[in-house]
Amino acid sequence: MLSTQDSSIIPNEWYNIVPDLPKQLPPPVDRDEKKSSIQLLNQILPKAILKQEFTFQKYTKIPEEVQEIYAQIGRPTPLFRAKGLEKALDYNGKILLKYEGATITGSHKINTAIPQAFYTREEGSTGVVTETGAGQWGTATTVAASLAGITSKIFMVKISFNQKPLRKQIIELYGGEIVPSPSRETKFGTEILSRNPDHPGTLGIAISEAVEYALEHDLKYMLGSVFNSVLTHQSVIGLETEKQLEILGEEPDVLIGCVGGGSNFGGFVFPLMRKFKETKIYASTASEVPKFSKGEYKYDFVDTAKILPSIKMYSLGSDYVPEKIYAGGLRYHGAAPSLSMLVNSGRINSSDMPEDKVIDALKLFARTQGIVAAPESGHAIATAIDYVKNNTDQKETILVNVSGHGLMDMSIFQR
Amino acid sequence: MLSTQDSSIIPNEWYNIVPDLPKQLPPPVDRDEKKSSIQLLNQILPKAILKQEFTFQKYTKIPEEVQEIYAQIGRPTPLFRAKGLEKALDYNGKILLKYEGATITGSHKINTAIPQAFYTREEGSTGVVTETGAGQWGTATTVAASLAGITSKIFMVKISFNQKPLRKQIIELYGGEIVPSPSRETKFGTEILSRNPDHPGTLGIAISEAVEYALEHDLKYMLGSVFNSVLTHQSVIGLETEKQLEILGEEPDVLIGCVGGGSNFGGFVFPLMRKFKETKIYASTASEVPKFSKGEYKYDFVDTAKILPSIKMYSLGSDYVPEKIYAGGLRYHGAAPSLSMLVNSGRINSSDMPEDKVIDALKLFARTQGIVAAPESGHAIATAIDYVKNNTDQKETILVNVSGHGLMDMSIFQR
Repeated sequence: MLSTQDSSIIPNEWYNIVPDLPKQLPPPVDRDEKKSSIQLLNQILPKAILKQEFTFQKYTKIPEEVQEIYAQIGRPTPLFRAKGLEKALDYNGKILLKYEGATITGSHKINTAIPQAFYTREEGSTGVVTETGAGQWGTATTVAASLAGITSKIFMVKISFNQKPLRKQIIELYGGEIVPSPSRETKFGTEILSRNPDHPGTLGIAISEAVEYALEHDLKYMLGSVFNSVLTHQSVIGLETEKQLEILGEEPDVLIGCVGGGSNFGGFVFPLMRKFKETKIYASTASEVPKFSKGEYKYDFVDTAKILPSIKMYSLGSDYVPEKIYAGGLRYHGAAPSLSMLVNSGRINSSDMPEDKVIDALKLFARTQGIVAAPESGHAIATAIDYVKNNTDQKETILVNVSGHGLMDMSIFQR
Repeated sequence: MLSTQDSSIIPNEWYNIVPDLPKQLPPPVDRDEKKSSIQLLNQILPKAILKQEFTFQKYTKIPEEVQEIYAQIGRPTPLFRAKGLEKALDYNGKILLKYEGATITGSHKINTAIPQAFYTREEGSTGVVTETGAGQWGTATTVAASLAGITSKIFMVKISFNQKPLRKQIIELYGGEIVPSPSRETKFGTEILSRNPDHPGTLGIAISEAVEYALEHDLKYMLGSVFNSVLTHQSVIGLETEKQLEILGEEPDVLIGCVGGGSNFGGFVFPLMRKFKETKIYASTASEVPKFSKGEYKYDFVDTAKILPSIKMYSLGSDYVPEKIYAGGLRYHGAAPSLSMLVNSGRINSSDMPEDKVIDALKLFARTQGIVAAPESGHAIATAIDYVKNNTDQKETILVNVSGHGLMDMSIFQR
């Protein structure tokens, strides 16, 4: 019998949902007639990424070196039955987990960082630049760049940079360069600092600095989520899961994942939707960032700095300042256009989870499964627990994507 | 082809090297005629553990439930080729890694905690007690106890308890109870505190408190390393590696691991010695705790508190106070009797590694392999790097055991 951990389970093609969507996906648009943000993408992204961003092709070959690095960083990630949790909930159905925390950087972010760094090097650039809020994306970027043999520069929101010294250490350890943003390394940052030397920074400012720095130094910019190409790369999660379910002889009745920008969720759910057409699907969001239940489905800016294009998505507004919650990865104001369309069409349900329920879920999960899940993933686990508790049919198979471990975010339990 | 990650690779028997040793293993002895420490073991250990401690049987069946929990916590752990490191070192041979950091608690410690918790529950006790220094062993104990459905109480050396708030959080999150030692929960601790309320604690005091608490409350005491039974449990590492090497078609010329008490090292190396009789073997220790190169092979106390029996081993003296190094797991004054005998006979070589070399090795490893290894494991990696650099024969296959990840010990890189 083939094992669910066999490296042959790593797919050799990524899946792009765009041609399979019920309607044509509204394209990104420019909102500023003078400065084209779509033209900007042409300058800062590798050509291969641009092509993947706008393609209507369903499948893209995963370069062999990328497949090899996927194996090196812990793919395929495990799919297993959560017997401890089932028992604690007295559930007669099955709970299956796909666990992205088993990758070496501890979350799914590395799945797209690897191909983006690979294409950057293949196209002759010497390095990548990106921004990071809590630090997860910056870490994934640096590891991917080091494994590809190119440089990485990370603009980290200054207030997070100061609060999370561990992130600086780990990024430097992995060979990356990390700069608190706003910085004096860009015109944009210098200007902000000249007005306010103590500016705490924002993700929008960090994006602006990263983009400017990439343009000025002929480097490539890395996209962390929301964009189609990123969701395509993340499809490794769902494609692996599909093969693993086949090996285990399981069919899910319910799929649950958490949503920040939607790349982890889309990467998990979209490939599975091809086969499991009747499966119930829940996108778990933070109650504090209720993009689907309280947001509007409209054209809005990807980033608060309004540098990147406008896209049609559920959004709380690109100026939305969410409450400070521990699940930093879920604080994004919008969600990927493809995912937004499927929520709007009713195919995908949303579920808002408050932080106290998430903490309880994480505790139960740790004690019954032995895993400290990430606060973001805790939302998906909390939604699954809620589903089981409210579910009269006690025989369904619930498949939950746990997007990462929470060993770097233990402070959530201090309260 | 069978995958190296298949759950069928988890062995169903543990291996005990004692009957295969070149000479009979000198038994533990009592040093205090009035209080028998061997008799004490009878009271505080589960019967199954006692039997495994003194058996001359080569193989012991692993209970099915323990095999299942091994699978749940991430076994088999991966065996893979370190291509990034090979390339960085310009090495024409092969470097293979067995990576225990892939278990959910991030190190090999869980391998013995699981069976000890299991036997405790099977024999009708409601919980386990143990001590912990840096916190790794306490964490493994609590996870194992929670998965077995019993309680756990951890006496943690007070100075570490105060320095490492994360450990307290993670142990409580996993459902354990953690107490800074010396505490007022035992007579021994109360007496020490009455003399010095600010006593920082020692591992010896913590052991004394754990043993007293187990005796008083009819709980079982968990052994973290050094003892035969623990090395037997850790043989899962080497037994898995043996099968994985067979699948990969590889034969190691050199085996390298790090040594604290010797359980990780023995668990990795001993099963492989059965088949690879000519393989060179290096036990990597901290230069700051040079037990093999500067220690004496003699009867000495297992613990500084002199509660547990005396055993024949390499020792720097049970009162030895090592320099403060980041690799807390390597600060133990001695090494398991079986390992000590094989070092004394010349079968196993020792290699002392200074901390600065270890830090360099950890950095190179992170950048080339994408893994932040534990400071302890960094010693084995540094020994491997040294071996490659000094090795004129550039075709050997070097197999290194990486005992854990270092995500909880990033402060080593702050200096």
